[in-house]
Amino acid sequence: MMSEDQNRTLTRVGKGTPMGELLRRYWYPVAAEVELEQKWTKRVRLLGEDLVLYRDRSGNLGLIAEKCPHRGASMVYGIPETDGIRCAYHGWYFDATGQCIEQPNEPETSTFKERIRISGYRVEKLGGLIFAYLGPDPAPLLPRYDAFAVDRAIRVVGQAILPVNFLQVMENSLDPVHTEWLHGHYHEFIQRELGGDVRVAFSRHHIKTAFDVFEHGIVKRRLLEGQSEDSDDWRIGHPVVFPYMLAVGSGGLGTYAMQMRIPMDDTHTWHVWYNAYVPGEHVEIPQSLQKLCLYDVPWRDAEGEFITDYIDGQDIAMWVTQGTIADRTTEHLGTTDKGIILLRKLYMEQIQRVQKGLDPLGVIRDPSLNGFIKLPLERKKHHFSEGFESVTMRFQTRFCPIAKDLINFFEKTSVAQ
Amino acid sequence: MMSEDQNRTLTRVGKGTPMGELLRRYWYPVAAEVELEQKWTKRVRLLGEDLVLYRDRSGNLGLIAEKCPHRGASMVYGIPETDGIRCAYHGWYFDATGQCIEQPNEPETSTFKERIRISGYRVEKLGGLIFAYLGPDPAPLLPRYDAFAVDRAIRVVGQAILPVNFLQVMENSLDPVHTEWLHGHYHEFIQRELGGDVRVAFSRHHIKTAFDVFEHGIVKRRLLEGQSEDSDDWRIGHPVVFPYMLAVGSGGLGTYAMQMRIPMDDTHTWHVWYNAYVPGEHVEIPQSLQKLCLYDVPWRDAEGEFITDYIDGQDIAMWVTQGTIADRTTEHLGTTDKGIILLRKLYMEQIQRVQKGLDPLGVIRDPSLNGFIKLPLERKKHHFSEGFESVTMRFQTRFCPIAKDLINFFEKTSVAQ
Amino acid sequence: MMSEDQNRTLTRVGKGTPMGELLRRYWYPVAAEVELEQKWTKRVRLLGEDLVLYRDRSGNLGLIAEKCPHRGASMVYGIPETDGIRCAYHGWYFDATGQCIEQPNEPETSTFKERIRISGYRVEKLGGLIFAYLGPDPAPLLPRYDAFAVDRAIRVVGQAILPVNFLQVMENSLDPVHTEWLHGHYHEFIQRELGGDVRVAFSRHHIKTAFDVFEHGIVKRRLLEGQSEDSDDWRIGHPVVFPYMLAVGSGGLGTYAMQMRIPMDDTHTWHVWYNAYVPGEHVEIPQSLQKLCLYDVPWRDAEGEFITDYIDGQDIAMWVTQGTIADRTTEHLGTTDKGIILLRKLYMEQIQRVQKGLDPLGVIRDPSLNGFIKLPLERKKHHFSEGFESVTMRFQTRFCPIAKDLINFFEKTSVAQ
Repeated sequence: MMSEDQNRTLTRVGKGTPMGELLRRYWYPVAAEVELEQKWTKRVRLLGEDLVLYRDRSGNLGLIAEKCPHRGASMVYGIPETDGIRCAYHGWYFDATGQCIEQPNEPETSTFKERIRISGYRVEKLGGLIFAYLGPDPAPLLPRYDAFAVDRAIRVVGQAILPVNFLQVMENSLDPVHTEWLHGHYHEFIQRELGGDVRVAFSRHHIKTAFDVFEHGIVKRRLLEGQSEDSDDWRIGHPVVFPYMLAVGSGGLGTYAMQMRIPMDDTHTWHVWYNAYVPGEHVEIPQSLQKLCLYDVPWRDAEGEFITDYIDGQDIAMWVTQGTIADRTTEHLGTTDKGIILLRKLYMEQIQRVQKGLDPLGVIRDPSLNGFIKLPLERKKHHFSEGFESVTMRFQTRFCPIAKDLINFFEKTSVAQ
Repeated sequence: MMSEDQNRTLTRVGKGTPMGELLRRYWYPVAAEVELEQKWTKRVRLLGEDLVLYRDRSGNLGLIAEKCPHRGASMVYGIPETDGIRCAYHGWYFDATGQCIEQPNEPETSTFKERIRISGYRVEKLGGLIFAYLGPDPAPLLPRYDAFAVDRAIRVVGQAILPVNFLQVMENSLDPVHTEWLHGHYHEFIQRELGGDVRVAFSRHHIKTAFDVFEHGIVKRRLLEGQSEDSDDWRIGHPVVFPYMLAVGSGGLGTYAMQMRIPMDDTHTWHVWYNAYVPGEHVEIPQSLQKLCLYDVPWRDAEGEFITDYIDGQDIAMWVTQGTIADRTTEHLGTTDKGIILLRKLYMEQIQRVQKGLDPLGVIRDPSLNGFIKLPLERKKHHFSEGFESVTMRFQTRFCPIAKDLINFFEKTSVAQ
Repeated sequence: MMSEDQNRTLTRVGKGTPMGELLRRYWYPVAAEVELEQKWTKRVRLLGEDLVLYRDRSGNLGLIAEKCPHRGASMVYGIPETDGIRCAYHGWYFDATGQCIEQPNEPETSTFKERIRISGYRVEKLGGLIFAYLGPDPAPLLPRYDAFAVDRAIRVVGQAILPVNFLQVMENSLDPVHTEWLHGHYHEFIQRELGGDVRVAFSRHHIKTAFDVFEHGIVKRRLLEGQSEDSDDWRIGHPVVFPYMLAVGSGGLGTYAMQMRIPMDDTHTWHVWYNAYVPGEHVEIPQSLQKLCLYDVPWRDAEGEFITDYIDGQDIAMWVTQGTIADRTTEHLGTTDKGIILLRKLYMEQIQRVQKGLDPLGVIRDPSLNGFIKLPLERKKHHFSEGFESVTMRFQTRFCPIAKDLINFFEKTSVAQ
């Protein structure tokens, strides 16, 4: 159990809060590149700030405060220009730093515009996503984690906006045992209710779990009943990438899978499932799979009930029913929650590092360390032992419009090992 | 008019409030039995508490707190077991008393589970419903009112969740005069607007009304213009069953009709219309009418306007427009509101009895008094004098999917008198 | 920038607030006459009050408090009578002054009803609308502005309920420059995005603007690039009619167009676009166009996004994104905002007049001044120079179900000049 104060410290993400200042030391996705192909702007809510991401007529991207400082209208309805964007209301023109560079109806000699400046944040592209940095200068490097940086990959990206604080989503990733119940026994129960009788690898019992802090976060490992200590699951595991990602593990399926829990504000999380499938060395990726595929992941049905017959929907049902911000003053943690306790401790320590003016865990400034960050990932992962199609259709990837194409493609060809 | 304090005392239903403690001395429906035939759990909100009603693998029912005490996930998504239910998140297993009896990933020697206990409430079946008791031990008996306990009945049960405090719904039942206007003159007005010209028995003028507290609540009686004091309406009347029901009166139609206003919380009431139709002695109930029929009663149309062309819809329009919790500090009661004043006084007196440690009105502990509680009900009720079909189609029963079958059945056969 | 206090003073419209008391000195539309042809009542929210407008059996209109003072039920579901309306719940009967004139179930000798009185407000018809006055006696005259009073007109009336305070809508009307950007350059941008390449008269650059307080409000004038100072746009302009209307200007199209921003409460504005088209002197109005046409103006699409490909939708996007009540403590006004500054100053001055017991600007008490109030309106308006069809289809009039009939009619016939 935590005190109300501790819970508040770990869950408030706005500017000037302890957690908010820690989180501002990292880069976050704000869009997929494909989103700005058909339109010029995207409304972005990140760390409690309302922003507008835009593409200008030169093809450059900008991320500035949504509200025009003149009269407060939204620049999501702005007009793109050569070097920035104009507010549609009166044509005030801003560049990507947030500086006002033209007020077309003010006198030509006016210096008024020079005194008008709004937030303008750095953006960078990687792996088909657009990332932003909202923290203090100098900005660290955008980490080139394997999933984002890998070449020759088929990229499919699911997304959902969840009405919960990001922390309870992250805690789920430091809690290996829940897979045995939620994605194992509960999944089997639901499938039997629906008429099937599916036994899944997920229901295998945990003998023990372990957690090791490393330079990019925390590696978690598990030993399941019947496994030897030589198994990949116990020797290698897969990591929570500090402070807001989970690298799921490839499981020998040629996949890099990143789950990103982007804090929109204290009570909303943009959940992004980023999968990069790497075919075997000499296999050509067909045209239809070359473009990043972005899709919505549904998690409530028409009656408002949770959709719990797939793995990620099961997680979401748990997170959302914990409450918008989980009340940690009434919880009862057991021995299997040691990963959660470690994660909270790590956040607190890194908050203190930031308060002392130090870089927190995982911040990268040395380009030589940022070529291609290969994260530890099990190859032979018990949970994925039912094979590519089974795993693809049991996760949120089932909602990917090209899921069938993916399965057909990987059935005919080999995947990278 | 009441003071704000008095209004608050009579309308707050949560644990520890004066009214909440009074209400906790009674049994409430939480579901119809048929609801748990196709599924294992039902989310229940009652007296401000979030609960989950479940059926276990042995066929027993349980009613426990919705949230797992481990990490706060909802057990509406729980897994039924032989003697209780498991949280889907980590498999914690609870029995019907709310005791945690297994934590499958804690060490075998752990005594942690013994210290984990949540609310677990008594449930009992009666008349096709599942009732629950949330109060202190020892629990009183579940009253076997005639409508619930009667044998050989066709049971149809309408339901609606209304966004209002239960008190204004109950006050409506101590207010006989509203029938003359709302269900009489207003009903005739609406029917004329729709093109008909229907004169209804309800519009008959009230000469006088009377209210008598008795062992199960308050009997209300009316004398209508043209009636003699020998009429059933004046001699017998029908009762408000304390603290949350109205027995509508059979009116010689072979019907027991209970309206139940179940306080979900301060601002929501689950309204249940429970009708038991008893055919004549030697009449066989057809197969199609033997199973309890549960259905939703609509009360707003697609535009959000109230549906006021049926009797219960008229009541609902009044209750809901009074406000979520009616502001009794601005009301102006007249002589015809003496029943409402009596009801409020009765609640206050019974609150005080509970505060003194005494059983309040209507609580039954002696089994010899609970065989079959026959409530006083007029047989020849002027309001129902238009006959079975007319009454059935003018009340919420019109939305019952087997209403036509019911009418056909009772047109061909006799009803119990 | 304003202080929070100043912003509050100018935006709170409830009874007893400074702005609320000023606004109560004027008449407001509460319905179109056609709305009460098919029904007897209309729910009205005006200046923070909940009211019911009704038609009685004698054909007279009344506007009284919505809630019955007896038990608080809504009289929107009332029964119309010869001289007023009855509450449907218990038949209490009110006349148009709000006096209770019958309580049918109280004793005949009771004087209770004499002590029951609710708000009852004056209503008057003009130009197919029903106007109400909520202020102190004696009521001023209902101003007979040209658009409402003109004879032989085709009247089409669009409406939308906007979730914003009325002030930011009014400020828009003292801000001529926004037309150049929002309805000019932004409009052209959106049309190009949709595949067209439309150059509109609106995008012409403003050389200067002027604002003159006059007896009915503020006349605003503009000089556009290429215009001479003899142009109607600069010589005549068109007025904001204090305190809540804009007379758009006929532009030689035979149109009187009034935009009305009726404050429902602090956070909602009923926007009414009132157009009266006057055909040439000897032209007969066809049957199909003789009846006032009331229609809804949509401003959000199915995804909740603003519809910005028509002029009024562009305005609405700006108003709504400014926030429910625009935060004027963070604005940055420029030289082109002098009209807005003048409007705020005028409201403050008129608030003070009311506080001194004087009539504020535009209040008319002399019938000789109220025969037909001809407002200053440009005849040759640059913005409308594309002609009748183009203007009709670019404004909210596109949603008028008889827009095509209107265009066909005026293409074949002349308009009044």
